[in-house]
Amino acid sequence: MVTKRIVLKSRPIGIAIPENFKIETIELSPLNDGEVLVRGLFFSVDPYMRGRMNEAKSYTPPFQLDQHIEGGVVAKVVKSNSNQFKTGDLVIGMLPWQEQMVVSEKQLQIIDGEIAPPSYYLGILGMPGLTAYVGLMHIGKPKEGETVVVSGAAGAVGMVVGQIAKIQGCRVIGIAGSDEKCALLKKDFGFDVTINYRTVTDIKKAIAEACPNGVDIYFDNVGGEISDAVISNINFHARIPLCGQISLYNVTEIPMGPRLQPMLLTRSVLMQGFIIFNYQHLFPEGRQQLLQWVKNGQLKFTETVLHGFDQLPNALIGLFKGENTGKMIVEA
Amino acid sequence: MVTKRIVLKSRPIGIAIPENFKIETIELSPLNDGEVLVRGLFFSVDPYMRGRMNEAKSYTPPFQLDQHIEGGVVAKVVKSNSNQFKTGDLVIGMLPWQEQMVVSEKQLQIIDGEIAPPSYYLGILGMPGLTAYVGLMHIGKPKEGETVVVSGAAGAVGMVVGQIAKIQGCRVIGIAGSDEKCALLKKDFGFDVTINYRTVTDIKKAIAEACPNGVDIYFDNVGGEISDAVISNINFHARIPLCGQISLYNVTEIPMGPRLQPMLLTRSVLMQGFIIFNYQHLFPEGRQQLLQWVKNGQLKFTETVLHGFDQLPNALIGLFKGENTGKMIVEA
Repeated sequence: MVTKRIVLKSRPIGIAIPENFKIETIELSPLNDGEVLVRGLFFSVDPYMRGRMNEAKSYTPPFQLDQHIEGGVVAKVVKSNSNQFKTGDLVIGMLPWQEQMVVSEKQLQIIDGEIAPPSYYLGILGMPGLTAYVGLMHIGKPKEGETVVVSGAAGAVGMVVGQIAKIQGCRVIGIAGSDEKCALLKKDFGFDVTINYRTVTDIKKAIAEACPNGVDIYFDNVGGEISDAVISNINFHARIPLCGQISLYNVTEIPMGPRLQPMLLTRSVLMQGFIIFNYQHLFPEGRQQLLQWVKNGQLKFTETVLHGFDQLPNALIGLFKGENTGKMIVEA
Repeated sequence: MVTKRIVLKSRPIGIAIPENFKIETIELSPLNDGEVLVRGLFFSVDPYMRGRMNEAKSYTPPFQLDQHIEGGVVAKVVKSNSNQFKTGDLVIGMLPWQEQMVVSEKQLQIIDGEIAPPSYYLGILGMPGLTAYVGLMHIGKPKEGETVVVSGAAGAVGMVVGQIAKIQGCRVIGIAGSDEKCALLKKDFGFDVTINYRTVTDIKKAIAEACPNGVDIYFDNVGGEISDAVISNINFHARIPLCGQISLYNVTEIPMGPRLQPMLLTRSVLMQGFIIFNYQHLFPEGRQQLLQWVKNGQLKFTETVLHGFDQLPNALIGLFKGENTGKMIVEA
């Protein structure tokens, strides 16, 4: 039996282009003991994947040339040679970008499609939700009445951060890249103020005006000049969880910017880079809390869904053009 | 009775110059109840004072124009209208740069000149020692076998940091600005490797060679390009206590440098700006531990002493030219 997969054809220089990917057909191997044949339903498309397209070592190993891309996938069991899974089970795992695949039972976990839509396990109940939870609650440590600024606020992580900060009694300012995203953040997700960084004339001033008491927590998803502007308004004893630097993922040399250390020093600021995979001990607590907030209606979520397996490269490229609101998903 | 004092005559632009200071004579007021007349013996001269010469708000209020400079001073009681102090007592306090002064009993604490030389209370048993202790032990959290890099290693804080790191079983690399300082750090203070940043041709490479296993803790006293070089060798889960930025204290606009966040993010690095005055709850523990290490001979200290009250401005200016080894003190 044959199936389609997406491989890394060449490493991008700067922003990724369609030619960096190739869709090809391969033969599936037969099922051995303990293996399961699954069909991918929802494929997670995330900013960190851009880093894995480079050759440089990072916190996750690089994708290999002419080998499949991989990521979080919600799949359905088609055939099972494992006593842990049966046909029809919904499962999640770090799996290849492949329409159907034969995988070890060890790579899969059962999910419950009754509690929440299956794709939520890639978003609010998955890595983005846990990233927001751990970064804000365990690094940012919000206190009631504090001011929280979130960049990349309309992304899968950012919109959860803002809502959790509101649940904690904070004033929340979101920075995003379109008026539509900004309107959505205020209307549906309860952000107090939003700033469209693409149209604002003086972002430093806009942040100062939005944060008359300064910034206590800056949850940074983007880096670059947006971060410079936020940090120029940072308070004494502020916390900066460093979650992403999407504005810099496509750069080809180390970018320059104002030196941060004098500000971080004189204002006693904490900056902590964090990778969610290092906080697995907090996942059970985080999942339980996120699920409870979702059930209570205190936490909402939105997805941008592209339809068709072949859309995966476009979805990943689109992330860096701000084409998503919330979680970017491809439904195969 | 008249005495001499040193006032801030003008605010420096860039590096301070003698003309920013003025030595003048003033009349001492008579002693009220609860007041003490003291004579300054040892005056502490510290990098943070440069910040107080600026008008900008920082973690300590700016010195006022035509008003005295102040800092840590070890003094002797000349006359007392307080039942807490008697003539001849050795005391310490945040006091004016003044030969003799009338101060409230509340500004003074008794010190014991038998345990250690009185000037040590401005250094290893004072703010520099406590800064090293708190920054390394409570922010850096060294583990046996880790690699610790200290910039400004021959300064009052740096030389204590390096020695404490050795006591904790770490490999210690010191960066300093002369061969004499480097030799002293190895010979007297037990540093494993030293780097003279003024003569080395490629500091990034020198650090990489000195730290074959990378850098786990970078105790930063200087900032600027030295820090860029260390951070380019930083390990996953490293900690960077930000203690000082002496290379940048005299700059007149925000300096540019390579953006840090991508590195801090992908390597899960902690950077924490800290001001010792916010850690007063750790002072008793810190003082006790430092004193014990001094008594055991595990912790040594050195001072650069300038003689004569009028030398205070030169001592402060000299700090930024690297004229001190260890703690800069003026003995009046």
